[in-house]
Amino acid sequence: MKPEGARARLAALGFGARDVELLFEHFDDAERRGKLGHGHARIGWLETQAFDPQARPAQTSSDGVERWESRGALGYLVLAEICEDVVAGAGSVRLISADAFPTGHLGYWVRRLAESGFVALLTATSPPRLAHPDGGEPLVGTNPLAIGLPNPAGEPIVVDVSMAKANYGDILAGRARPEEIVAFGGEHAHKAFALAVGLQGLVESFAGERHGILLLAGKPESDHFAATLRERSAGLRLPGDS
Amino acid sequence: MKPEGARARLAALGFGARDVELLFEHFDDAERRGKLGHGHARIGWLETQAFDPQARPAQTSSDGVERWESRGALGYLVLAEICEDVVAGAGSVRLISADAFPTGHLGYWVRRLAESGFVALLTATSPPRLAHPDGGEPLVGTNPLAIGLPNPAGEPIVVDVSMAKANYGDILAGRARPEEIVAFGGEHAHKAFALAVGLQGLVESFAGERHGILLLAGKPESDHFAATLRERSAGLRLPGDS
Repeated sequence: MKPEGARARLAALGFGARDVELLFEHFDDAERRGKLGHGHARIGWLETQAFDPQARPAQTSSDGVERWESRGALGYLVLAEICEDVVAGAGSVRLISADAFPTGHLGYWVRRLAESGFVALLTATSPPRLAHPDGGEPLVGTNPLAIGLPNPAGEPIVVDVSMAKANYGDILAGRARPEEIVAFGGEHAHKAFALAVGLQGLVESFAGERHGILLLAGKPESDHFAATLRERSAGLRLPGDS
Repeated sequence: MKPEGARARLAALGFGARDVELLFEHFDDAERRGKLGHGHARIGWLETQAFDPQARPAQTSSDGVERWESRGALGYLVLAEICEDVVAGAGSVRLISADAFPTGHLGYWVRRLAESGFVALLTATSPPRLAHPDGGEPLVGTNPLAIGLPNPAGEPIVVDVSMAKANYGDILAGRARPEEIVAFGGEHAHKAFALAVGLQGLVESFAGERHGILLLAGKPESDHFAATLRERSAGLRLPGDS
């Protein structure tokens, strides 16, 4: 898909110019990183969804955990607004919950934060698609966990791990079959399933029984880890590297 | 090992009566749950280690993230003190970092918090024993992630996932060979390795380049998740169940 075509289709959905850019940039980053399930294919998917392209999120309370409400805005735009607010802030550690869906590939958001010098942990829930490794109906989402680690001396480290072998986006992009949406790990699939359960419960504890996110972000006390690990790993590909 | 024998050996290491109980309870819980690497075998291991049994941790600062220092106290005792402080508090969400090692099986701590009505996420770093799935020297710890989800209607859900197939404790207990300390997941081992990298960087961002913990704990806004999942999973064994 050509950039101008992609932007035109997003604009035709009713998004303002700034949101068109935010969305295009997210999908295009996914496309370039080979995460095709979160890439341009999502534009066609959005065209099949009902949502209010003019909705705006808002921060509603703050008592240890800051709560944001999407008020109907797409998850991508909710996270864009939250990340912008974090980067514009003083850098002290913040814990933020929101109802937000869909949120794309979470590595994108923690990379943005890491590139601004913030360490960040981000998780998000999604529709129940993961069953218990012993069988039964889908119980929890594929619930990725992303961690961005800033690196003043070079490239940050960007972890973004889905608890499933394949994700719904992979199916949208024609890259996986529905039966591959199972907890990863083979004989240790109970570990990935357990992580998906824990992250789902954690997010719902703060955002309620809705698809949501939990973000922890702040300026680190110590920011040597990424550079030290890059040196010690001597050229091995580290999480988030292209 | 008989309880009186275990307690006597802990007392002989110089611990006061309260710490003997805290330690014995942790090791005995691990033993009963079949986590033998964190069980009674750790008493013999402690007898080979150098530490100050009278050292006490202290909270040193609080600005979004609360910082605690072990001041030489064993990690078990640092976490016991922190959990006690959390349970005694008002319930608002707290983020706590500390240098703390060893900390045992993290499920024990988040279960205690969940049983007091707190949702908790806890991770801890350990000596580098996990190599990159493509090879090379050990780069990061086996870095477990634990999440405790309270359940006012019954048993909490207690997630406790190590990023390795086997842990150092399993070797201490004679239950695994050193070559089994590799990232779990087989063909998807890069996912478990990435999580271990991310969690290590996250902890070091706040605790510095020491073995440490990061704990997020507070009273949940919504506490339906555990009961709902137990109902929907219709008798399947959920994380933390014996």
